[in-house]
Amino acid sequence: MPRTERGRRTLRAILDAAAAEFGDRGFHETGIIQITQRAGVALGTFYTYFDSKEDVFQALVRDFSDKVREGAGRAIADATDQIDAERRGLDWFLHFAREHREIYRIIDQAEFVDQDSFRFHYETTVARIRKRLEAAAERGEVRADVGEIHAWAIGGMNVFLGLRYGVWSDDGDLSEVARIANDFLAKGLAPK
Amino acid sequence: MPRTERGRRTLRAILDAAAAEFGDRGFHETGIIQITQRAGVALGTFYTYFDSKEDVFQALVRDFSDKVREGAGRAIADATDQIDAERRGLDWFLHFAREHREIYRIIDQAEFVDQDSFRFHYETTVARIRKRLEAAAERGEVRADVGEIHAWAIGGMNVFLGLRYGVWSDDGDLSEVARIANDFLAKGLAPK
Repeated sequence: MPRTERGRRTLRAILDAAAAEFGDRGFHETGIIQITQRAGVALGTFYTYFDSKEDVFQALVRDFSDKVREGAGRAIADATDQIDAERRGLDWFLHFAREHREIYRIIDQAEFVDQDSFRFHYETTVARIRKRLEAAAERGEVRADVGEIHAWAIGGMNVFLGLRYGVWSDDGDLSEVARIANDFLAKGLAPK
Repeated sequence: MPRTERGRRTLRAILDAAAAEFGDRGFHETGIIQITQRAGVALGTFYTYFDSKEDVFQALVRDFSDKVREGAGRAIADATDQIDAERRGLDWFLHFAREHREIYRIIDQAEFVDQDSFRFHYETTVARIRKRLEAAAERGEVRADVGEIHAWAIGGMNVFLGLRYGVWSDDGDLSEVARIANDFLAKGLAPK
């Protein structure tokens, strides 16, 4: 992370420009020059932050992972129990997906451009879901046998709902989508 | 579809070679010449079947959609009820994903290379899930309010389980993964 406020703003501008360019054109069709032009920074400035196009792409995937972790974390902070937390987290994520449609295009490109980042993003996201659910099982809020398979199932559910109702749709009540999906989840995870 | 058996074999060879090349290198890094070399056909032969690299890519996504539809269809034919059918379908799909790891890389590239094919693949797959579940609701086998949102949730669940346990993992009991996910599904979709 840059030490100065100005440095952090420049880094942010480069990441946002890269997200927009990679989202619009795709990784292969995007040059560093297009990123710097969009960010309004000199080419030399780019190279003080990143070594290559691959490097900024990797930083972008981490940046999205951070945003999802922090955003979902804030959204679930006031939840009354774990099922309510999962609803709030999904509600937040669906709105985030609609506002940041490029995220899906970037993460899916990562499968090719940077396989490690691709796995890192999903594995850490799902590991957080699993940890939350296992803690909830300890408290008796969800079934005692909850584990990794449930966490991947829920991760996939959330990503697809974000694609269908967030990225592909401009209207539709996202909180209602989250409510219906959460009712399915609540019954599927109910203690025996 | 070619009219002769020989023509169908040639088409199959081109599609299989394209799947392998696009899966290994990615769409952008693959040339038609690499596809024809791998398939063992002349460049002119390629052009009697396809107009372009985009064209064979689009055919490949449709071909995968067909395989999933037919394979899952056969797998669920002997199911005792809809929940059992969903387990059999997922069990089949997890094995299919492990044997055809390139499918994920190709479908995810489609988000960029051919957005229409990308949506077509997921929309038709999820529409089939929805249709099956709504018919089951009529028979009282699953909750009466089952609908599109549940179908997208289940589609996402299946795709992520295929990624984690099929594509990314060489061992692990896939039928056990399907069984655990199906128990979650059964409780989530149980009639009220």
